[in-house]
Amino acid sequence: MRGIRNKDTIKIGPRHSSLVSDSLAVEAPLEIQIWDHHHHLYFPFNVTMRTPGSDVELALGFLFAEGIIGKIEDVLQWEESADDLIRIMLSPQIRLNQTDIDRNFFTSSSCGVCGKKSLEKIAHASCYFPPKASPVVHIAELMALPAQLFNAQSLFQLTGGIHGAGLFDMKGQLLLAREDVGRHNALDKLIGAALQQQLVPWRAAALVLSGRISFELVQKASMLGIPFIIAVGAPSSLAVELAEDCGITLIGFTKGERCNIYTGAERLIIDKPSSTSITAQLFTP
Amino acid sequence: MRGIRNKDTIKIGPRHSSLVSDSLAVEAPLEIQIWDHHHHLYFPFNVTMRTPGSDVELALGFLFAEGIIGKIEDVLQWEESADDLIRIMLSPQIRLNQTDIDRNFFTSSSCGVCGKKSLEKIAHASCYFPPKASPVVHIAELMALPAQLFNAQSLFQLTGGIHGAGLFDMKGQLLLAREDVGRHNALDKLIGAALQQQLVPWRAAALVLSGRISFELVQKASMLGIPFIIAVGAPSSLAVELAEDCGITLIGFTKGERCNIYTGAERLIIDKPSSTSITAQLFTP
Repeated sequence: MRGIRNKDTIKIGPRHSSLVSDSLAVEAPLEIQIWDHHHHLYFPFNVTMRTPGSDVELALGFLFAEGIIGKIEDVLQWEESADDLIRIMLSPQIRLNQTDIDRNFFTSSSCGVCGKKSLEKIAHASCYFPPKASPVVHIAELMALPAQLFNAQSLFQLTGGIHGAGLFDMKGQLLLAREDVGRHNALDKLIGAALQQQLVPWRAAALVLSGRISFELVQKASMLGIPFIIAVGAPSSLAVELAEDCGITLIGFTKGERCNIYTGAERLIIDKPSSTSITAQLFTP
Repeated sequence: MRGIRNKDTIKIGPRHSSLVSDSLAVEAPLEIQIWDHHHHLYFPFNVTMRTPGSDVELALGFLFAEGIIGKIEDVLQWEESADDLIRIMLSPQIRLNQTDIDRNFFTSSSCGVCGKKSLEKIAHASCYFPPKASPVVHIAELMALPAQLFNAQSLFQLTGGIHGAGLFDMKGQLLLAREDVGRHNALDKLIGAALQQQLVPWRAAALVLSGRISFELVQKASMLGIPFIIAVGAPSSLAVELAEDCGITLIGFTKGERCNIYTGAERLIIDKPSSTSITAQLFTP
């Protein structure tokens, strides 16, 4: 199976030890090259450590999340030239400035010191915004999604060491799931798959993430206008701030019957008795 | 407390919900600038998203792990110019080539496509190698270390969302511990602290990591000649290959009385009965 490598491993247990062939998640560099229409050659655009598989999706999703392309039609052709090399020809209308080429990620292409500037930049760069009046959902329906993603994560079940990202419709149906050792790659693959399958924007969808929520993950998801992000792990402070700025409902620490709602509670039905009047506290000035 | 921000959060539980002030791990950009001895100005070298705190250590550790500096004396002075800006003056002997300045990380400064080339490059770039004849240790002593690191992780206990890296001596004493939302940052901070406190190389030490083990983490640790890496999470395939190449004993999935030994078992005493003769299987041709 691509993405898995076996390795002889000594397993130590409470009572005895044994030699087993253990499955490891593969981590290997992928290079993305882009065609230069002027000089008629491919130049290296990015190298990322990823789990092999869904490489074209990874490349397309990455270009979209970075704001290089805005739709699948911006890509004229792509080619898996080798196991670890993707070559992409963009429409000549897509202008890559030197900053893009120098591989300055979003967060460093602002002044870099001031998070505020980054947030402002996102507000302009994002292609799609979450709908103001998105469907109101019962919290219990969203809390059930991580278990569905987990069941779809074939590599995780073999290795225990890989991140997952899943896209769900508002009926709780899993539309797409992707995996990678890097959580940002898992999301890039998901975005690329959605682009190829015409499943964008994500204005009536929920994104489920297996791990912790960084600023970068919320930034990528915000590019697709997602209203709901549900994660198993904790969010960072900046992830919460960005979700708030972008109007995203952000839920973390989702496990069994527990979760934390950080932003966007107005889209949720919570019918559990509360010790205090939460709505009153959160939504009155 | 620096590194923590509070946020009103709705906690959903099995029976009721409540509004609480939850602690989030702060994620904010840090810019590292380096003095240009020719043009007499600071230029931006790197921007990283990190948890504020130990910023000088982060900058120093990053420069060391990237192979820019080899010892603390290579740094003439440093300055925290602002909350999110570190300015560093290196010795004029340290030559930064354009590749370094373009912020090409290790993995992309090789051809980038071939993992093998990366591994070869490390073998030349590393300052210290793990000792061939390092102390032989009882596996149970190493398995006890993650719990010690966990107890020292003050931010994790507040947020549940932050990585830790800890340096232990061969008696199992915790020498240093650092935390960050980024696991590579936690290790960079640990390296920087060790440089400042003259606790390098790490040839008679064990490194404990709270999460999964990527190639990048083993690469950074290999720069200090560490013989033992013990992690709570799973390693990637390339992390295991690099550990093997560098002669590092790599242990993952460490929890309670269980762990997996991936490489370097010759440094370990395993006195549990095994279902098969492990040593014979692993170490005979």
